[in-house]
Amino acid sequence: MIRKLCIIGVGLIGGSAARRARGFCEEIVGVDADPGNLHRAEALGVIDRGHASVEQGVAAADVVLIATPVGAIEPLLHELKPFWRPDCVYTDAGSTKGNVVEAALRVFGAVPPNFIPGHPIAGAERSGVEAADAGLFEGKRVILTPLPDSAPDALARVEAFWARLGARVERMDVGHHDEVLAATSHLPHVLAFTLARMLGRKDEQAEIFRYAAGGFRDFTRIASSDPKMWLDICRANRVPLLELLGEFEAALREVAGLVRSGDADGLHACFSEAKAARDKFLKLTENNHA
Amino acid sequence: MIRKLCIIGVGLIGGSAARRARGFCEEIVGVDADPGNLHRAEALGVIDRGHASVEQGVAAADVVLIATPVGAIEPLLHELKPFWRPDCVYTDAGSTKGNVVEAALRVFGAVPPNFIPGHPIAGAERSGVEAADAGLFEGKRVILTPLPDSAPDALARVEAFWARLGARVERMDVGHHDEVLAATSHLPHVLAFTLARMLGRKDEQAEIFRYAAGGFRDFTRIASSDPKMWLDICRANRVPLLELLGEFEAALREVAGLVRSGDADGLHACFSEAKAARDKFLKLTENNHA
Repeated sequence: MIRKLCIIGVGLIGGSAARRARGFCEEIVGVDADPGNLHRAEALGVIDRGHASVEQGVAAADVVLIATPVGAIEPLLHELKPFWRPDCVYTDAGSTKGNVVEAALRVFGAVPPNFIPGHPIAGAERSGVEAADAGLFEGKRVILTPLPDSAPDALARVEAFWARLGARVERMDVGHHDEVLAATSHLPHVLAFTLARMLGRKDEQAEIFRYAAGGFRDFTRIASSDPKMWLDICRANRVPLLELLGEFEAALREVAGLVRSGDADGLHACFSEAKAARDKFLKLTENNHA
Repeated sequence: MIRKLCIIGVGLIGGSAARRARGFCEEIVGVDADPGNLHRAEALGVIDRGHASVEQGVAAADVVLIATPVGAIEPLLHELKPFWRPDCVYTDAGSTKGNVVEAALRVFGAVPPNFIPGHPIAGAERSGVEAADAGLFEGKRVILTPLPDSAPDALARVEAFWARLGARVERMDVGHHDEVLAATSHLPHVLAFTLARMLGRKDEQAEIFRYAAGGFRDFTRIASSDPKMWLDICRANRVPLLELLGEFEAALREVAGLVRSGDADGLHACFSEAKAARDKFLKLTENNHA
């Protein structure tokens, strides 16, 4: 049982954690820069109490979950620093981890041994505390990126916390995390945003969206994600993301070359390889949920 | 009531048309190069009878629906030519239309006035007659691309045919059709294939698919489409597709530039524009289904 859980940033992720943590926390408080958001979270019963001040929020907390946008983490660590306590454990839910570790290094000189960066691979195009869902993390992976100096007992406590939210907890090297997520999440988001924007401009000139079907809807679903959140992620993870954007551009030029030359065998091999890759991914996903 | 409907190519599209046409056709026959496929279509009750020969299939038919892969249409028109009858109407279901018109020009010297090219914007990653579904065209758009020489009564009969399959029939200029579909369908497919293939290779080296989430699943859904069908489409519609691939590459390079320079305002504007475009598309889709 956790006596007091403090959630900083009560949006979809923070709110969903709060809803699920209800079963194993005596008290859940929220801290949020937006007073309206705190009121809504209280009114919805997501948190017991909201605090505008970090100091009040984290006082006597056993676990602090940082669930703010990625870009807000560094200033927040500055605010937390004077109230940082060795008997509490800290984790975050940022989609990128290298930048969080660097921020902690800049703020504290060394990453505090009781701060275990984390990333729940769960989300939705929806955002905000209204969309909070106690089942959001159920069966989903949470990647923790502990550091050589992380305290084993803090790591164990943070692992147990995420596991009680329903997640399957794994550990990964910080750099590897950011490369993997750049490939499976950040690159697809940038592609979807780029396509939706480009076709939106075409639609202004000639109606094209009315002739788009379900495939287009699925392909661009992630383009409905929160622009602010994604600009933060793109900035935070720009090094691996840029490398992948370059790789994708080269891959696309290769396929365009096959289209240009009308190379039937080449296109067949290319599309078949793509289909096989996706089938492999699907099989893995089914196993994940089995 | 149609006395005899002949469907050439009894796959998902042809089979779905047959299932729905059951209610307003006395007889439905199928022609398919694959005898096993014809047997399955008969056994499933999708068609009344299968013919290996085009001659037998189209004999005394009132309506002929060509539902073969796009790449098979020109040789098929050659086979049909000796048996072409002025009292029958012909339509097709190819995803590209310029190439079908060109094929008809090459085969007949002029597009026959009773051949009205069409494109049902409906489909699925599934394929084959087993996936045939009487509701596949319900509420979906079918774009007909009649030509200046098209016979008005043939156009009226083909429009009525598609409408009775449940579709909302529209007319469009051939070239405009191919440009619109290159943007809303062919380009997204090529992007999804390219990404799935590229990440499949990465997954061979380091497991990345296990950390991919629902966004990735949706984004790459169309990469599970039939490679043969899509290589045909890419070849048939290569001119507008290549132009859009070039535009996309330029758009992607612009976004990469914003990521590289860490331009928060620029990225926010870009992603917001993308989100607004997709929201517009979604609203339109809802209205379509209203």
